[in-house]
Amino acid sequence: MAAFIFDLDGTLIDSVHLHVLAWQQSLAEAGVKIDGWRIHRRIGMSGGLLLQALSHECKCQLSVGQAKEVEERHGEIFRQSANPPQPLRGAIELVDHLKQSKVPFGIATSGSRPGIDPLLRSLKIGDDIVVVERKRVDHAKPEPDELLRCQQKMGVRAEECFVVGDAVWDLLAAGRARMFSIGLLCGGAGPQTLFEAGAFRVFDDPAELHESLYQLGI
Amino acid sequence: MAAFIFDLDGTLIDSVHLHVLAWQQSLAEAGVKIDGWRIHRRIGMSGGLLLQALSHECKCQLSVGQAKEVEERHGEIFRQSANPPQPLRGAIELVDHLKQSKVPFGIATSGSRPGIDPLLRSLKIGDDIVVVERKRVDHAKPEPDELLRCQQKMGVRAEECFVVGDAVWDLLAAGRARMFSIGLLCGGAGPQTLFEAGAFRVFDDPAELHESLYQLGI
Repeated sequence: MAAFIFDLDGTLIDSVHLHVLAWQQSLAEAGVKIDGWRIHRRIGMSGGLLLQALSHECKCQLSVGQAKEVEERHGEIFRQSANPPQPLRGAIELVDHLKQSKVPFGIATSGSRPGIDPLLRSLKIGDDIVVVERKRVDHAKPEPDELLRCQQKMGVRAEECFVVGDAVWDLLAAGRARMFSIGLLCGGAGPQTLFEAGAFRVFDDPAELHESLYQLGI
Repeated sequence: MAAFIFDLDGTLIDSVHLHVLAWQQSLAEAGVKIDGWRIHRRIGMSGGLLLQALSHECKCQLSVGQAKEVEERHGEIFRQSANPPQPLRGAIELVDHLKQSKVPFGIATSGSRPGIDPLLRSLKIGDDIVVVERKRVDHAKPEPDELLRCQQKMGVRAEECFVVGDAVWDLLAAGRARMFSIGLLCGGAGPQTLFEAGAFRVFDDPAELHESLYQLGI
């Protein structure tokens, strides 16, 4: 194994709680009341899929236009937070270590530019790193498209990739892409949930993954 | 079995994500950086215990004065939120149903007045319902004091009480008080975590508990 594909929100950036409140507020503005824990479980899907899943769950219908509006408001609320989200413990150091050690890695996220730009900057991820965002593929996680696109752009084989993610959707997508996956607890899911979704190993956060790279043969 | 003791935050009120961000911001202002998921796992403890546990976890020391300041700032940020937390799905109906059916119930929370007053009002819980707040007991959950005080004030026996909570700390306290406990997923903990902490049954949220009262012989 020789390469990593990282999810961004909840995996490298501590943004899950802010995302939950931003979705909850934007949905409330559209007249949809939904509890935070139900939104939390859906973070890591694309915005479109998340809204579809939540509308189904709370038995309310959002038109295509309403969904688009909710998604835009979510982005606004998220970006305008007085306390922008920071890298998770050890994330900057892990990224730096992989660069120094010439281990290939990329980012595959269901988020989109320009929203993800400050997050990438805070991790010191520049144009030399492959970043696959939602808009660049037809289907977001849990479909494997983002991961396969990232792997191809990195020029490595699927069998060489470890997918690192905090959400069930990352791990299901990894399974469908025939890649091994590493679950991180720092997005809020429990270890049982991550193992059930196919995680090969589960660690706390980027810092514990960094300390445990030897377990992965790296 | 004939009585219920409810936790408040994360059990009847959808406030966990806001609590996490309020603690994170107040800690950041005191120079302590800690990831959201670590705070989330501690919600349901008293503020004092939570700060002690988190300082231990991130190997930083807060003086008694600093901890008091952080706790006060947390309360301020929480109260000043532009989007105050709402009752969870089915919470108002469950409370109303128990009142109508003359099933005794009370609230035992690690929160304190006046912070919890608007939350109680939103549930239509008035002075006729026993509410034990943090300040009224020496030790908060996971110690059993809040539950035992609530049970005594309600005038029922411990063996008659079901404790309903979303956090490990509620369930551990219930075990120590020799009470059965019901875990709810709506605070964000997974079912495995709640069963491991001793839950007798686990449901999604107040709405599912309401529909499942027959399972508890009520």
